[in-house]
Amino acid sequence: MTEPIHDLAHIAHAELLTPFPQDSLRFFTDLFGMEIEHREGQSVFLRGWGEYQPYGLKLTEAPLPGIGHIAIRAWSPEALKRRVAAIEGAGLGEGWSDGDHGHGPAYSFRDPDGHRFELFYEQDRYVPPEALRPRLKNVPQRHVDRGASVKRIDHANILAADVAANRRFATEQLGYRLYEQVVLDSGVESGAWMSLSIAAHELIYTADHAGKSAPPARLHHLAWFVDTREEILRAADLFVDADVPIEAAPAKHAVAQGMFLYVYEPGGNRVEVTTGTHFIFDPAHETVRWSQAERARGQAWGNKTIETFHTSGTPDVSGAPPGPPIPPTSRIPAL
Amino acid sequence: MTEPIHDLAHIAHAELLTPFPQDSLRFFTDLFGMEIEHREGQSVFLRGWGEYQPYGLKLTEAPLPGIGHIAIRAWSPEALKRRVAAIEGAGLGEGWSDGDHGHGPAYSFRDPDGHRFELFYEQDRYVPPEALRPRLKNVPQRHVDRGASVKRIDHANILAADVAANRRFATEQLGYRLYEQVVLDSGVESGAWMSLSIAAHELIYTADHAGKSAPPARLHHLAWFVDTREEILRAADLFVDADVPIEAAPAKHAVAQGMFLYVYEPGGNRVEVTTGTHFIFDPAHETVRWSQAERARGQAWGNKTIETFHTSGTPDVSGAPPGPPIPPTSRIPAL
Amino acid sequence: MTEPIHDLAHIAHAELLTPFPQDSLRFFTDLFGMEIEHREGQSVFLRGWGEYQPYGLKLTEAPLPGIGHIAIRAWSPEALKRRVAAIEGAGLGEGWSDGDHGHGPAYSFRDPDGHRFELFYEQDRYVPPEALRPRLKNVPQRHVDRGASVKRIDHANILAADVAANRRFATEQLGYRLYEQVVLDSGVESGAWMSLSIAAHELIYTADHAGKSAPPARLHHLAWFVDTREEILRAADLFVDADVPIEAAPAKHAVAQGMFLYVYEPGGNRVEVTTGTHFIFDPAHETVRWSQAERARGQAWGNKTIETFHTSGTPDVSGAPPGPPIPPTSRIPAL
Amino acid sequence: MTEPIHDLAHIAHAELLTPFPQDSLRFFTDLFGMEIEHREGQSVFLRGWGEYQPYGLKLTEAPLPGIGHIAIRAWSPEALKRRVAAIEGAGLGEGWSDGDHGHGPAYSFRDPDGHRFELFYEQDRYVPPEALRPRLKNVPQRHVDRGASVKRIDHANILAADVAANRRFATEQLGYRLYEQVVLDSGVESGAWMSLSIAAHELIYTADHAGKSAPPARLHHLAWFVDTREEILRAADLFVDADVPIEAAPAKHAVAQGMFLYVYEPGGNRVEVTTGTHFIFDPAHETVRWSQAERARGQAWGNKTIETFHTSGTPDVSGAPPGPPIPPTSRIPAL
Repeated sequence: MTEPIHDLAHIAHAELLTPFPQDSLRFFTDLFGMEIEHREGQSVFLRGWGEYQPYGLKLTEAPLPGIGHIAIRAWSPEALKRRVAAIEGAGLGEGWSDGDHGHGPAYSFRDPDGHRFELFYEQDRYVPPEALRPRLKNVPQRHVDRGASVKRIDHANILAADVAANRRFATEQLGYRLYEQVVLDSGVESGAWMSLSIAAHELIYTADHAGKSAPPARLHHLAWFVDTREEILRAADLFVDADVPIEAAPAKHAVAQGMFLYVYEPGGNRVEVTTGTHFIFDPAHETVRWSQAERARGQAWGNKTIETFHTSGTPDVSGAPPGPPIPPTSRIPAL
Repeated sequence: MTEPIHDLAHIAHAELLTPFPQDSLRFFTDLFGMEIEHREGQSVFLRGWGEYQPYGLKLTEAPLPGIGHIAIRAWSPEALKRRVAAIEGAGLGEGWSDGDHGHGPAYSFRDPDGHRFELFYEQDRYVPPEALRPRLKNVPQRHVDRGASVKRIDHANILAADVAANRRFATEQLGYRLYEQVVLDSGVESGAWMSLSIAAHELIYTADHAGKSAPPARLHHLAWFVDTREEILRAADLFVDADVPIEAAPAKHAVAQGMFLYVYEPGGNRVEVTTGTHFIFDPAHETVRWSQAERARGQAWGNKTIETFHTSGTPDVSGAPPGPPIPPTSRIPAL
Repeated sequence: MTEPIHDLAHIAHAELLTPFPQDSLRFFTDLFGMEIEHREGQSVFLRGWGEYQPYGLKLTEAPLPGIGHIAIRAWSPEALKRRVAAIEGAGLGEGWSDGDHGHGPAYSFRDPDGHRFELFYEQDRYVPPEALRPRLKNVPQRHVDRGASVKRIDHANILAADVAANRRFATEQLGYRLYEQVVLDSGVESGAWMSLSIAAHELIYTADHAGKSAPPARLHHLAWFVDTREEILRAADLFVDADVPIEAAPAKHAVAQGMFLYVYEPGGNRVEVTTGTHFIFDPAHETVRWSQAERARGQAWGNKTIETFHTSGTPDVSGAPPGPPIPPTSRIPAL
Repeated sequence: MTEPIHDLAHIAHAELLTPFPQDSLRFFTDLFGMEIEHREGQSVFLRGWGEYQPYGLKLTEAPLPGIGHIAIRAWSPEALKRRVAAIEGAGLGEGWSDGDHGHGPAYSFRDPDGHRFELFYEQDRYVPPEALRPRLKNVPQRHVDRGASVKRIDHANILAADVAANRRFATEQLGYRLYEQVVLDSGVESGAWMSLSIAAHELIYTADHAGKSAPPARLHHLAWFVDTREEILRAADLFVDADVPIEAAPAKHAVAQGMFLYVYEPGGNRVEVTTGTHFIFDPAHETVRWSQAERARGQAWGNKTIETFHTSGTPDVSGAPPGPPIPPTSRIPAL
């Protein structure tokens, strides 16, 4: 038995690409309720009200939607060095950069599917402007509550032609723990839910339905956390009125037991509002392995899994024009 | 046994007086989340997102805070005439006016304590501007969700030197049903919770501690409804961050079982965010009579009733300067 | 303009028929959390914790599932007489009986589709045994909280070959108010949501898909109220673990805005746990009329309406064996 | 900068002492909703529905109430050895035992204040009996939902004459992270909130008001987790009806932002139902230090901290007869 790895702490931020940056920005500020923390080049840095770090989302203009990179913070400088060595040993490293707005030197690498990641340790702590100063000193920012009012980035679900290969890399080189997985009757692993903490999932790989013919490194969705299930129900109400395309109305996942709401942001990326997953306290947790038949039963309350959930990712491979793959529900403009 | 009276439908709106109209207006729009529907003279007409009528609050500049008038809508033109006749019979009528913004001819009267009321039947129905148009046609307005995001005016609690006399007027002349009351060991009635519908209370009289020496017609509080208890907890979080003076943090009333949150708006009036009261379906409901000892036990979960709840009303009689009687919690400005 | 009728107060109870009385009883006690108040003949009388009347459900053994009768309480003895006269005038009366357990003389009649109803005024008030005595005197019963822990019967949705004819009878002879309706492109009325109070619906007629070939007087569902949406989410969790067939997982209706959870009780009847509908305070409420296209858009958050919702009722007309039309989710016995 | 310690995973269970074992057992099963997993000697082993381990509470008969021991599970056999060495180096070790029901060899030690702890790695995984088998394989037990229906043990708050000394031991020898603390104007540390994970607190030390004259190793409270704030409000309702002495009605802590409900179990120990604390993802989290003045402002929404919260612990030092220090709210027996 090898000792568990405790070198990486959490996803500090993710970079989302959008071909419609103005619309996407309005979505994340007005409807997700995030604050603009910084602008630089083609990017806007956005934060949920509960993030200690300056931002959890880097929104960047690009020809196609998808995931730019995922940035993971290490537990310590030494821990960072250990993980960099492991990644280099796997032949997937791409080298150091000086860092970006809000954090220090970062080591860049790609997972086997080609998604770009960064590791760093030095991270600025958010200092709110006066108007966003909270009343209680253990809260990073005043809770303004606009739209869904997301608290912090929660997890990333990325697509891979070979889930097992990427899952092995994440667990062996990065130290992720594999809490749940789906293994099809064919023996192919089609989903892996992994975490660096007691949170039920922080990094998820699911099978890219387009397989090896798809462009590599596609995104399934990014998810943001809210504190209560009521906030998710409320978000659905607000999204309906604001013409946000809802892909999956609020319900409960079987895997990890989380409450979900899936929508498309104007750039065409699927984003989730989530809460309520269970915690994994067992240091010797046995991976929960779901069979094809078990997955076919649907979500926790029997809701069938939405079909597009299996077929849609960004960038798109269907040849559809850019933007959300399902039509908006109405013609009402966001306020 | 006399037949029940079914002539009045509900409180259509209430007029609140404030010596600090700009601050009060900002409170009701930014922190209670109401929309400005109209401005006229020294008044601003404000609405919760769930009100079918154009507004539920008329906010009027005045030298002292307190209640301007309470406007009750009748079930029909004939029902209106019957109630007017009954009030005139009691010698408390003041005559007809042409109406006000959003409603037709109104009959004015005063309760025995001197609070001014109006009765009318003709009421405009709210027509939202495009930006506030809801997605679903059975909802009057888009749910924007700003601050507490109150849905509609719920009830008025007014003070009276003689609760019993006012309660008798309300039940006998207006047709209110007395659902719950407090009778002190002395036999004096110190509180009466009344309704025109299955809602647990729409008009409440409680004893004015200053008795006959107080100016008549004082206000204890006006209350606005939200759909869930979670919204009340959330409102408390938002109010703390926005420097709103909280008089009573979220908890549950014994009387009527409602969840409450009491704060002071900048004009000095106590206002409540409420939800969750029980419904009274029994057409022969026996009034629940609480004794002095039972009331002394506190609220539903044993919370002691806040002392200022018994002593403070508007206009104030203590000689304190105008404004909220308790200090704000911090110096953070509202956004 | 005719004056509104205010003669009937609410559905005091409903009688549900079941071919599997032991299983149905265990469902309503263990999983809906109701208390057995009385047993008599082939019937068990059951109550939710918040009902002032002794019971809201009379569960009766019968060869086929379905609705036995719906009992409506009048506002007064005089009001009762007025409604009886109106029903007799419509030629649908069936005469008086001495009453049943818990209530006084009742007048029996059938709606145009043949559903049996009773009207009465005299109603016993529930007196809890010591073990169920509540702490607060304005609550009828200790809140024990078992399973879904339903509070009270909320509404009945019954099927009719001719919705319009039944809706006219209910509004004109009984005094129901028509709050919302569905009118198909053909001009046929396929749904009518009616109430005696500010509650959004108490009696609903929807079109029996089998039309005139179906046996008359079928049931779509009975619904019970809980106070919060969280209780509905929790009920879904409990029902999954208890092998209750879930037809529609928790979500929000477009019509009336209520949160729902639809399941089948072991007798084969559809039952709902509901909360959160809006209130109709407008005494001159204009009926909200939904078109076929609007209904096709699904529920409030875009959930598609479950197909069996349109095709299944009790008694069944498909020739299937008695019992729930959809298989239970697992083989775990109820505790 | 030293590297963070990641050797201990979580509090696997705690042992609570009670002089009234039958009453305490009925409380934890009927009102907290726990299951009896095992009985042995003078102890009953109880579990919340969400615990992967067989039990989280060992309830043991004893002359006086208080805490028996706190059992912490290590991340690995090697991690266990490292912590044992550190504790032995601090001179507080007491040696190995063969383990107890449900877990393997355990190393016993005392904190500077004298509280007994155990460390172990080998832990049985719960296998539910058929009646408690859950529907979903990633849930350890069917969610039966009885009373508060606690999910798992969350944290222990223990009293110490010298908080700083105990906090130093916990952080330096055990590897706890200090997330928040209270430092009085005198410089004395009066509270320390520590964790082994992103959970806001798992082990809390607060100052024993009786100082060095008190018996050592007293308990402030044990806390159990539920998933939602609504469950805490519901628990308060159920506890009121069940005559449970409520010390602090539901509200929100300033420290760690958790929702709380404090009651006394029949043995006289304070127990909490909790949820909603924030998570600490920052690996370099700077301890939030609260001043005396800040603490005097009360809880998050301004609720004053309950006086007995500062003065009461178990075993009692006031000479009062054993049992809850505040009277029950009524005479209604638990079902």
